[in-house]
Amino acid sequence: MKPIGPIPPAFAGQQGELAIGGVSVSELAEKAGQTPFYVYDLALASAQVARFRTAMPDGLHLHYAVKANPYPAVIQHFMELTDGLDMASGGELAVVRDCGADMAHVSFAGPGKRDGELELAISLGATVNLESETEAERALAIAGKLAITPKLAVRVNPDFELKGSGMSMGGGAKPFGVDQERVPALVWRLLDAGADWRGFHIYSGSQSLDAEAIAQSQEASIALAADLAETIGEAPKTVNLGGGFGIPYTANDTPLDVEQVGERLGAALAGREDILADTQFMIELGRWLIGEAGVYVARILDRKVSKGELFIVTDGGMHHHLAASGNFGMVMKRNYPVAIALKMGAEPAESATIVGPLCTPLDRLAVDIAVPRADIGDLVAVFASGAYGLSASPIHFLSHPNAAEIVVNERKITI
Amino acid sequence: MKPIGPIPPAFAGQQGELAIGGVSVSELAEKAGQTPFYVYDLALASAQVARFRTAMPDGLHLHYAVKANPYPAVIQHFMELTDGLDMASGGELAVVRDCGADMAHVSFAGPGKRDGELELAISLGATVNLESETEAERALAIAGKLAITPKLAVRVNPDFELKGSGMSMGGGAKPFGVDQERVPALVWRLLDAGADWRGFHIYSGSQSLDAEAIAQSQEASIALAADLAETIGEAPKTVNLGGGFGIPYTANDTPLDVEQVGERLGAALAGREDILADTQFMIELGRWLIGEAGVYVARILDRKVSKGELFIVTDGGMHHHLAASGNFGMVMKRNYPVAIALKMGAEPAESATIVGPLCTPLDRLAVDIAVPRADIGDLVAVFASGAYGLSASPIHFLSHPNAAEIVVNERKITI
Repeated sequence: MKPIGPIPPAFAGQQGELAIGGVSVSELAEKAGQTPFYVYDLALASAQVARFRTAMPDGLHLHYAVKANPYPAVIQHFMELTDGLDMASGGELAVVRDCGADMAHVSFAGPGKRDGELELAISLGATVNLESETEAERALAIAGKLAITPKLAVRVNPDFELKGSGMSMGGGAKPFGVDQERVPALVWRLLDAGADWRGFHIYSGSQSLDAEAIAQSQEASIALAADLAETIGEAPKTVNLGGGFGIPYTANDTPLDVEQVGERLGAALAGREDILADTQFMIELGRWLIGEAGVYVARILDRKVSKGELFIVTDGGMHHHLAASGNFGMVMKRNYPVAIALKMGAEPAESATIVGPLCTPLDRLAVDIAVPRADIGDLVAVFASGAYGLSASPIHFLSHPNAAEIVVNERKITI
Repeated sequence: MKPIGPIPPAFAGQQGELAIGGVSVSELAEKAGQTPFYVYDLALASAQVARFRTAMPDGLHLHYAVKANPYPAVIQHFMELTDGLDMASGGELAVVRDCGADMAHVSFAGPGKRDGELELAISLGATVNLESETEAERALAIAGKLAITPKLAVRVNPDFELKGSGMSMGGGAKPFGVDQERVPALVWRLLDAGADWRGFHIYSGSQSLDAEAIAQSQEASIALAADLAETIGEAPKTVNLGGGFGIPYTANDTPLDVEQVGERLGAALAGREDILADTQFMIELGRWLIGEAGVYVARILDRKVSKGELFIVTDGGMHHHLAASGNFGMVMKRNYPVAIALKMGAEPAESATIVGPLCTPLDRLAVDIAVPRADIGDLVAVFASGAYGLSASPIHFLSHPNAAEIVVNERKITI
């Protein structure tokens, strides 16, 4: 028997039928019109924003990283609650434009921006986080052609990295950003060209559960921003400290102590160098804000025993939820938090492997876990599914139907 | 420096600009209307079919496994050249119906079939490969409701497995098929219910490069089919021996000796038990037929040096080609065969890591490989990309544009 990851607090203590945002999962299935579906509880998203605000120093801005979940109702929710939005593509930029986002608080990062994407960002007035000197020249040329003063920030590849991070994005050779020692020259070039230089984007890693490591990384980023500003001779208007706040996915993962991060960051900002006195600091989060608010729900199509082992076959699988299948940056498949959604809290009656409908052994939602008796027609819930879920999955793989998406906000259901 | 996989023979010896089906890659990019794109050389697909026919015993049927590449022009090509098509979902079934496939030679396998999918298959007259006893009962009930005699085969989970296979689908507890000892009872049930029992589907693994292992697996499958038929007291009309023929992807992979497989299979079929004398045998292949005929082409957006290492950033990446990024059933990222498409055969000038435009360190098409000098605007080709490419990739990840698909058949280009 293998362990599952920790069921998020909002769902862990439930008994009987799972409720999400106060709505029973079978009612949600009806509203979604099908299984499988993803449901995002916006009240939980709001609670995370509130927790962030309480934990973090006053004046710090919070941005939502749209790449974590670009479902429009989710974007719109965070547009109202956060101070800005961070983009990873022109496609995301087009969506937030259509959601009516204030472009003064929208930024765009990504190591391979096309000319068309730069043009869109500059013409909309979004801030472009430049990833290389050549990209800077392209952006300046496009701005010149458009006769617009471009808002340009520089993404810095710092010498340090976020320790214990699921994915390191700084430290050593990286495709992201400009090595810190080349940053001053690039900023001088932007200033010379008459661009509206916004400041720095310093992103050192992702999916970290280690408050100490995040705090050290933020302290190092603030010190680096000050050093760079001194060298450049001008203060950055903004410094994006990146994100990296993780959530628990698998057994032994423990939640991040955000309050500790906030305390340390408060002290670091209070003691920052004078040159950064008027700089606006921001943190961009995606996974931490929406990850635990999302649940993927599939229906059991079959129960079958092979060589004495039970397989529960559902209508959902890796084509909708690549990460839960263990094929998305995970070296070995470890189980996400899952449950039989109509039998929360019930005593385990058997052990089972939960698989999807695909003709491949990779299509496993949970391997060898303890479950209460689950029958054909029952629902299976995969928790911690709100970030990098459907949009990060191979939805056309084997030409099965797509999953639905639905949001719930207390008793309000929107499709 | 890390090695790349072997470039397929059709492209390996080329000098200068890569040609696919006799068409230069820059002309193909123009025809595709964009980069990135996938191009499938149908003449190479035809050549594989011809090679199969020559290598294999007379009378053996060849089916195309649509899941490998469901692009309609590819399906249509194999419809003309092969003896049937194998489906993995109702979605695939709908596509081949619309391509005008002869349903007498279409079968449908998959461990989690929905009622709607069973209904579609039965009403179209396709053969359903049953994966469990409960699925059999659902199929019989649906056929009764439709007043159609259903064509039903039984997928067998054999006690043996395909050794050295990339993905094992038989041997031990598996979600696929019915354990061999339970098969006779299930077939009797089908016969009692008046179904048109077609025979067996015995699929023991996938992506094997070991001719000996495949031969042993096929020999075991034929023997198992005979044993089962004896027990049942009736001969199967068909036996699908599965597929499992692999192609080389990474360094140290050597091509499968298909001629050896054919020789052994010829002997095994010649010596088969009398009860199988009139049985139609078939092999279903996807990857081996179309894998090496496909090339993924992306354009270089940036060259950047970080801490002394060169990164080549393209407009294509893991969102279009999950397998090449090493995130699709591969434990460790090993390089696919890749090349700078305008400089085939040129001497290496530098070492580079080729990445995509996504804001994640997972987005790597090739790590630390030797390349000729490649500039912004140049094209990068990823070979061995015809199977489980675009349809098996998270195309919405970070909301970048989708890849185009194009086929070429000698000088005929179709989009």
